[in-house]
Amino acid sequence: MTNTKLPALPAMPAGLLTRDADESLTDQIVRTVAARIEERLLRPGSRMPSIRAFAASHAVSAFTVVAAYDKLVARGYLASRRGAGFFVRARPGTVTAPAAAVEPAEQGLDVPWLVRNMFRQLPHQQMPGTGVLPAEWLDGEAVAAALRHVTRRRQDILLNYGVPQGHLPLRQQLQLKLAEVEIGAAPEQIVTTAGVTQALDMVAREFTRPGDTILVDDPAWFLMFASFAALGARVVGVPRLADGPDLGRLAELAALHKPKLYVINSVLHNPTSTSLSAAKAFQVLRIAEQHGIVVVEDDIYCDLHPGAGVQPATRLAALDQLKHVVYLSGFSKTMAANLRVGFIAASPELARRLADRKMLQTLTTSDIGERAVHQILCEGTYRKHAERMRARLDGMRARTVRQLERIGLRIDMAPPAGMFVWADAGRDTNVLAEKAMAAGLLLAPGSLFSPSQLPSCFMRLNIAAMQDAAVWRFLERELDGENR
Amino acid sequence: MTNTKLPALPAMPAGLLTRDADESLTDQIVRTVAARIEERLLRPGSRMPSIRAFAASHAVSAFTVVAAYDKLVARGYLASRRGAGFFVRARPGTVTAPAAAVEPAEQGLDVPWLVRNMFRQLPHQQMPGTGVLPAEWLDGEAVAAALRHVTRRRQDILLNYGVPQGHLPLRQQLQLKLAEVEIGAAPEQIVTTAGVTQALDMVAREFTRPGDTILVDDPAWFLMFASFAALGARVVGVPRLADGPDLGRLAELAALHKPKLYVINSVLHNPTSTSLSAAKAFQVLRIAEQHGIVVVEDDIYCDLHPGAGVQPATRLAALDQLKHVVYLSGFSKTMAANLRVGFIAASPELARRLADRKMLQTLTTSDIGERAVHQILCEGTYRKHAERMRARLDGMRARTVRQLERIGLRIDMAPPAGMFVWADAGRDTNVLAEKAMAAGLLLAPGSLFSPSQLPSCFMRLNIAAMQDAAVWRFLERELDGENR
Repeated sequence: MTNTKLPALPAMPAGLLTRDADESLTDQIVRTVAARIEERLLRPGSRMPSIRAFAASHAVSAFTVVAAYDKLVARGYLASRRGAGFFVRARPGTVTAPAAAVEPAEQGLDVPWLVRNMFRQLPHQQMPGTGVLPAEWLDGEAVAAALRHVTRRRQDILLNYGVPQGHLPLRQQLQLKLAEVEIGAAPEQIVTTAGVTQALDMVAREFTRPGDTILVDDPAWFLMFASFAALGARVVGVPRLADGPDLGRLAELAALHKPKLYVINSVLHNPTSTSLSAAKAFQVLRIAEQHGIVVVEDDIYCDLHPGAGVQPATRLAALDQLKHVVYLSGFSKTMAANLRVGFIAASPELARRLADRKMLQTLTTSDIGERAVHQILCEGTYRKHAERMRARLDGMRARTVRQLERIGLRIDMAPPAGMFVWADAGRDTNVLAEKAMAAGLLLAPGSLFSPSQLPSCFMRLNIAAMQDAAVWRFLERELDGENR
Repeated sequence: MTNTKLPALPAMPAGLLTRDADESLTDQIVRTVAARIEERLLRPGSRMPSIRAFAASHAVSAFTVVAAYDKLVARGYLASRRGAGFFVRARPGTVTAPAAAVEPAEQGLDVPWLVRNMFRQLPHQQMPGTGVLPAEWLDGEAVAAALRHVTRRRQDILLNYGVPQGHLPLRQQLQLKLAEVEIGAAPEQIVTTAGVTQALDMVAREFTRPGDTILVDDPAWFLMFASFAALGARVVGVPRLADGPDLGRLAELAALHKPKLYVINSVLHNPTSTSLSAAKAFQVLRIAEQHGIVVVEDDIYCDLHPGAGVQPATRLAALDQLKHVVYLSGFSKTMAANLRVGFIAASPELARRLADRKMLQTLTTSDIGERAVHQILCEGTYRKHAERMRARLDGMRARTVRQLERIGLRIDMAPPAGMFVWADAGRDTNVLAEKAMAAGLLLAPGSLFSPSQLPSCFMRLNIAAMQDAAVWRFLERELDGENR
């Protein structure tokens, strides 16, 4: 390496580096040089000092400079030309995301609008319409520790694909978890998925062709309406009452539409947080069997329910033992959405077909997340964590419902558990949601929860996200006097 | 807590615990008690000693025993009954996976058969048909370090959903990476996916309805045939030559079938490892434009190519700048399959539609994997790692090709880079693959790489998996003399 070429610009003033900082010398160089390039103090095309010259003028080792230059190359600030050294690069204009704010609805409120807005980085307390618990309620340290545990193990597990059906020890642990709610499922009957969303997509693709009908409850979780519609399915709603679907309508719609699937939350139904009665569960299975309908039981809120010993809860899969029922659940609500770990439990033959389908659709889910969830389930702390979350929700539910009623909302189905309240605002909640949006608050209007998408006076409120005075002030102002 | 109830069985002999072990006292108790339950020395229904009694008799703290009992409950060995203590539980029979072996093909060889077998835990050197590099070639330490880095950051990022379009800093880094291959794509034109497999599924679902035709190369990557067929698409093959598709056939098939999509590997085509010539690239785009076909450029082997400065490589997206071309790539081949990080680059409008579609299909991909890949790309070590992998493949390619020719295989398209060799065995490779299977070796017969699935004399060999004498002995024995 020679310094006799054209002199390079000094890349940065001397004396900027410090050994006392939290930041490594390499990172200090990277940060400083990058800033000087962004401020155009170092211009595209100009040559950087040689490794040796930079090292000498800043009293650091050549190794430190090599590492810093490598990072600057990786980040697009420098280009390396063999034999000629390092040059400042012309960078493509990096566009930064617009400031977080609720996105205006272009063509009225629709499901993609709501879901996109749910992912915006609004503070949780400004999103009474959100479907998740506040991050600080979840056990971040347990998730971080589990991921660290996974990375400490043999590294080749980080490099290979997982197996398409899902990490076997996790499936074995899920067998135990399902046994607790009286569902018998061997590990080969379980297929892991990227959350319940992917599970529903896979099951719908397995059983329906474009034009087929899928029954859902009305109201129900909105995302699946759009997901099924994207498959060309007709989505038809069965009115949902406090103890389950309207059985008369269910039988009528089954006869009329010959649906392939009926998707239902039996326990802690979204958005009402009510559960299916034992008597209705039995009748649902009879109607489904009579019409050859596969029942898809979405039990994502499973761990927010205190258990059948405390409150009645009848799971369809516990009655039917996965013969005509496909059972879905996951950990996005109670552990970490970001791990994207859900699962399907089904008959052995269907599980095999779904594992093949998953392979064609995404090859595998991330083994890493599955290993982390397995680790957390094994540690025995998850059980207590779930108990704490339930206690916390129990501590605010009755108070929040009373307060909502006081300001003029009607709550006919008072939820015994879970995070949601389905409240009647006595006016079009689409209008209310648009006003809320203008005030920087996200509401979930009832129209979205119906496959009909018709205007509705209901909305879904998340009691864990009703702790901010601004939310209450907004609701009080809007509902004042008119609905008592 | 009282010890005056019915006496509990001693849960484990005294003196078994040691403070010098690598294993914590808690884990030693868990392991020992679990083993005794499995050996039925502790029987279902029997009561465990109280926390206090266990702690006293083994000279450990009550805290240690509580932690151990919790883990045993989580793992299904014990049940806790409030006020009554801990009892040994009846465990559901846990079924273990059958020993790893190549699975016999039930109805002949098909794509799911091959893919299922690729996921079996066969040693890499027994899978000359595999599509991945050996785990020890990849940089496990970099992946582990990146994941640890992610878990050390603010924990709430582990708990929230990511954003449906994908982690923004990763998309910004991908913008730089794409600029290096002359593709201009702003971060909002990039959507992350769970590998190229999911990207293909999403794009096919966006552009086709059942009955529509998708053109692929013949040969080409087999998994997508089954994936597209599952969507109801007709998959039609265009003969692939050493410099790209047979243009005459491409034009004919385009006129005949009015295909919606044409999926192509322009650089390091799977299975031949050859690349598209500039002249053919231009003609492919002209034909596609003339017939209104969207070109899907799958560039998963991108980083195994030494760069256009070293060997010719023309990317369709670099010519067209994402107007009619959708570009897919990812890191499953060169970084870690298990992170499941791939991406789509497309026009701004299509990227928006695909982000919405992804949201309906899986909500989000795992932010954790995306953050880890971002970290690795930023560190500047990935570039050198990719260089090392290329050098390693270069070091074995010519030698392996010569050796294959020596034992009687014909290789007409000698690959200049990449990991695959497309070899003509002069006999039906389905038969050869079945014999290999019986010998515990996995071959990838040519029939699988054709949408026609017709018997073929070709097979795909992975030069990184041809380092074992058993593979060569098998091939030599089978091909001996007959094909020279």
